[in-house]
Amino acid sequence: MAIWDDVIPESDLKNFRKAQYGGETELGSKPAIVVVDMSWGFVDSRYGRGNSEQGWPAVRAIQRLLERGREAGVPIFFTTGYNDTSDASHGRWKSAVAPDPVENDIVPELAPRPDEPVLRKRRASAFFGTDLLEFLIYHGIDTLIVTGMTTSGCVRATVVDAFSYNYIVVIPEECVGDRGVVSHKVSLFDMHMKYADVLPLERVLSYLAERRPAAAAVSS
Amino acid sequence: MAIWDDVIPESDLKNFRKAQYGGETELGSKPAIVVVDMSWGFVDSRYGRGNSEQGWPAVRAIQRLLERGREAGVPIFFTTGYNDTSDASHGRWKSAVAPDPVENDIVPELAPRPDEPVLRKRRASAFFGTDLLEFLIYHGIDTLIVTGMTTSGCVRATVVDAFSYNYIVVIPEECVGDRGVVSHKVSLFDMHMKYADVLPLERVLSYLAERRPAAAAVSS
Amino acid sequence: MAIWDDVIPESDLKNFRKAQYGGETELGSKPAIVVVDMSWGFVDSRYGRGNSEQGWPAVRAIQRLLERGREAGVPIFFTTGYNDTSDASHGRWKSAVAPDPVENDIVPELAPRPDEPVLRKRRASAFFGTDLLEFLIYHGIDTLIVTGMTTSGCVRATVVDAFSYNYIVVIPEECVGDRGVVSHKVSLFDMHMKYADVLPLERVLSYLAERRPAAAAVSS
Amino acid sequence: MAIWDDVIPESDLKNFRKAQYGGETELGSKPAIVVVDMSWGFVDSRYGRGNSEQGWPAVRAIQRLLERGREAGVPIFFTTGYNDTSDASHGRWKSAVAPDPVENDIVPELAPRPDEPVLRKRRASAFFGTDLLEFLIYHGIDTLIVTGMTTSGCVRATVVDAFSYNYIVVIPEECVGDRGVVSHKVSLFDMHMKYADVLPLERVLSYLAERRPAAAAVSS
Repeated sequence: MAIWDDVIPESDLKNFRKAQYGGETELGSKPAIVVVDMSWGFVDSRYGRGNSEQGWPAVRAIQRLLERGREAGVPIFFTTGYNDTSDASHGRWKSAVAPDPVENDIVPELAPRPDEPVLRKRRASAFFGTDLLEFLIYHGIDTLIVTGMTTSGCVRATVVDAFSYNYIVVIPEECVGDRGVVSHKVSLFDMHMKYADVLPLERVLSYLAERRPAAAAVSS
Repeated sequence: MAIWDDVIPESDLKNFRKAQYGGETELGSKPAIVVVDMSWGFVDSRYGRGNSEQGWPAVRAIQRLLERGREAGVPIFFTTGYNDTSDASHGRWKSAVAPDPVENDIVPELAPRPDEPVLRKRRASAFFGTDLLEFLIYHGIDTLIVTGMTTSGCVRATVVDAFSYNYIVVIPEECVGDRGVVSHKVSLFDMHMKYADVLPLERVLSYLAERRPAAAAVSS
Repeated sequence: MAIWDDVIPESDLKNFRKAQYGGETELGSKPAIVVVDMSWGFVDSRYGRGNSEQGWPAVRAIQRLLERGREAGVPIFFTTGYNDTSDASHGRWKSAVAPDPVENDIVPELAPRPDEPVLRKRRASAFFGTDLLEFLIYHGIDTLIVTGMTTSGCVRATVVDAFSYNYIVVIPEECVGDRGVVSHKVSLFDMHMKYADVLPLERVLSYLAERRPAAAAVSS
Repeated sequence: MAIWDDVIPESDLKNFRKAQYGGETELGSKPAIVVVDMSWGFVDSRYGRGNSEQGWPAVRAIQRLLERGREAGVPIFFTTGYNDTSDASHGRWKSAVAPDPVENDIVPELAPRPDEPVLRKRRASAFFGTDLLEFLIYHGIDTLIVTGMTTSGCVRATVVDAFSYNYIVVIPEECVGDRGVVSHKVSLFDMHMKYADVLPLERVLSYLAERRPAAAAVSS
């Protein structure tokens, strides 16, 4: 059973099978985690672009992921928006919602640690106009675990860029959320077919647990 | 009536309205057209990744668009894949389909003219690993009309990049196609909400007709 | 007489003439100005990487340029470094100088106005890891006037990127500076040969004066 | 003795020492080699942009490097220009030299093997408008050995980009060449100070020899 089973008809699935899309990828040995836009403005329905129904459950799932990632010594990156409001900064976003700076504050449950970079961005992808790419190269990363909001927006744009740069991409299903149920499910389907592996959080937690350094290594 | 009306429920629409997404953008004065991957491999069902059902109607719609675009002197760009097959070139695509070089030949109905660049690419976006961006800048383009296949794949990746670079983006609905009906409709919805204007082909043809240089200008 | 005349021998010049490099470009109709890294750390010799001898004269020349640029309503962008000091943020810079946050403060003589973006960057080019490119596209810029420090470092990297993206590039000679006299002169030579026009500040001021909107236009 | 000793005065050196630039970097464990534009048009004086005096010696040095690199199983990439001649493709290059397609043919002494990608490019950097970056990421590269022509042009632009993406960059001094002696020396100085290690070819050959797989590994 996949989360998209009730929206993708068999006639569509047939065409993706014919193209031999889908399947599962062997994960790499050097993962990093990126947490996309888990700020008040997206997580919480009291803000125009927010959706508590999908946002808060994602917060709790990402908490579990970060705990395991920190134990394993995996590099963790956060993104959020800029607080400026000029026309060129807003660009071509088809949204008139005026950002309140608090909308760009990451929710306290997911507060970044001092050594975890928070990258400001103005567009959809976590790579666009940021230093994420060279940070990943610096750390010799081969696998990017992508989480956050929204699935069909900034998460998907980040996944497509990471895939294009030849990273193995993993999306822990419970760790992403959207403002639309159908957009969420269909983006998960599209990404799992072509660019990434959509996996249950438990599978990703196990993968990270295997990366946990031995006690000796930790103390060094 | 929008093409996505039968797949996006009212409860989702409500959230997008709350965020003030959607709406229509004023188009710019210097458009260009990009035709993404209208090659045998995507257009025609005899190839693994192809879908004649959506591909050939898109061919006919793009023919009309190109005719009008050429009359208006609008720069036109094509993309298609590379014919090499190394592991690094294939990268992280989750498809095992071995490419036959003919799959990368653009269908003859849409044959590029000698002055219309054909950009080879290995990833989803027409901007990734190509010179499309600096070509647009050279011509002072402000509006990009995106067509081709597949809607949820290379078209969408191209749209997100063009939007991110601050181009006004237009998708003539009849000029794009996919291998899945639901992926097609939901990507059109997602893009129209946030990044681009999905418009009937007739509207885009009228817009191009207004750009047609006067007889005197043409003769110069 | 060119500033590089005393360092580039005739035997070298002969090879550049054979390649038909050099010459002058017609400037465009939509210029923008970028002021690269005119912060305490580069302008002033009291800091490790700074050089007052070239820095402060450049400050005074840029002041004149900005005054004229603001009269002409030309978009102006500033860059400076980030204040963080992690290993990945420092990256491969071959400098051990620990940055004092004040080193990244732009000198008060060149204080940006509220509507003039200050883009933070970690690498040499003003385009790398920043939103400069999409800001230029938003404003329909065709010509980039590059100023700041250092000529052979961040200025040159910015010039090469702007050239690569197909912008016409102008370097007002008095508005750039370096920590080495020879590096400064030879970079000006290299850039003037291949990528940009190195022009006297007066020429660039005249060019901007022609762009000044008429009184009526200003009041609108 | 460094190659730039006769052009960089002590007064300049003093400023670079004050900034703690220069020094030597520890090379990484996963190198790749890029051979930039070693085509007839640059290597040989019979073409407008070419310089046999520096080009042919660089050919012989690169031959030695490639032999050792192939023994060590190091990924090797080549670049050369496109053969098209449209205005947008030519872009802002300040050279009127009309390219003869043969100018873009890599000299036979350095003929790429079938599994060594030849990346076409229109601008200075080997990364600009190409897939070099994602190829490096695919192979998990941490160190890029940059060779070819010209030192102050496409080699330097490639070095600055590789450095910016956080690769350790090495330039075997004998493996690069320019059309100007001073531009060559000063670019080597600038790059060694800030972005890369300029090393004798012998040092780089030894480094590659240490990477040579054991006999058993080779036979697999």
